[in-house]
Amino acid sequence: MDAIEVIMTRRSVRKFTTQDVSESEVDVLLRAAMAAPSASNERPWRFVVVRDRERLDRLSKSTPFAGALASAPVGIVVAADRAGMKYPGFWVIDCAAAIENMLLAAHASGLGGVWIGVHPVRPFAWNVGRAVGLPRRVVPHSLVALGHPVSIPSPVDRFEGAWVHADEWASRVTHA
Amino acid sequence: MDAIEVIMTRRSVRKFTTQDVSESEVDVLLRAAMAAPSASNERPWRFVVVRDRERLDRLSKSTPFAGALASAPVGIVVAADRAGMKYPGFWVIDCAAAIENMLLAAHASGLGGVWIGVHPVRPFAWNVGRAVGLPRRVVPHSLVALGHPVSIPSPVDRFEGAWVHADEWASRVTHA
Repeated sequence: MDAIEVIMTRRSVRKFTTQDVSESEVDVLLRAAMAAPSASNERPWRFVVVRDRERLDRLSKSTPFAGALASAPVGIVVAADRAGMKYPGFWVIDCAAAIENMLLAAHASGLGGVWIGVHPVRPFAWNVGRAVGLPRRVVPHSLVALGHPVSIPSPVDRFEGAWVHADEWASRVTHA
Repeated sequence: MDAIEVIMTRRSVRKFTTQDVSESEVDVLLRAAMAAPSASNERPWRFVVVRDRERLDRLSKSTPFAGALASAPVGIVVAADRAGMKYPGFWVIDCAAAIENMLLAAHASGLGGVWIGVHPVRPFAWNVGRAVGLPRRVVPHSLVALGHPVSIPSPVDRFEGAWVHADEWASRVTHA
């Protein structure tokens, strides 16, 4: 599948088969994540790859939207290391770019995944940090549940021409 | 190029030829951006596609890192509409996912681009909002400069095995 098709057909997958996700499959996803751009190439992202069932179950209760982790063979905690950060305002954006790469690479590999928001909701971040033992300087950003999809959702068209403006907010591009 | 190759070979491009970027090329990028996931499918993203030279020059001075817009045939202001937002904490992350899609689609299309951070730096946001006339409820997130690359930078390997942990922060995955 070419890249644009992968981007246009990716959807969130929340139900997974019992089939495992191999180390080498996860490796591709982590490499994709770390290929993302970041402000001043700061690369604030850190990853905890969770396969332990008990810990996945605990993470699945860390936010009301993390239920997919209960059936996922792999969950990834994405966090940022704030130690020595030169541009402390951009880690939220940088980690998001890495996660989008990860989800696209998963879809391209025949895997499915769902992005579970953690930051900036403090109780969610607290729960996630405790579940995987993050030190204080490492801030949880998001969770990603990954696995082989039970079924592949049909693509949806999310395009909205009215959200595109030409040269200034007051004018609009004409879109088909 | 397959999706994983596009992810792994994308690099920031800051110098552009004088060749124009067509409306249909920009359309593909906007569709890719809007195909991103967002918290509760909120889709907070809005876009101002800037082709007017004077306005591009003004935007190129809106932050110290926006110089690429001075030679870019197209710049895109990505912003979020905060009106009626159900989950006001997640627009920063959602817009970042959309921008990463846009940059990957640009690379897949033979274009080049660079992501210029705006949020959360208030003076940058103020300058950008003024340059394209954003109303108060619409918050600038980032700028993207786009065009045909003068040269295509070689891929770099940004992978760091030491940033990957297994099951908990205290342990590590062994990576080649």
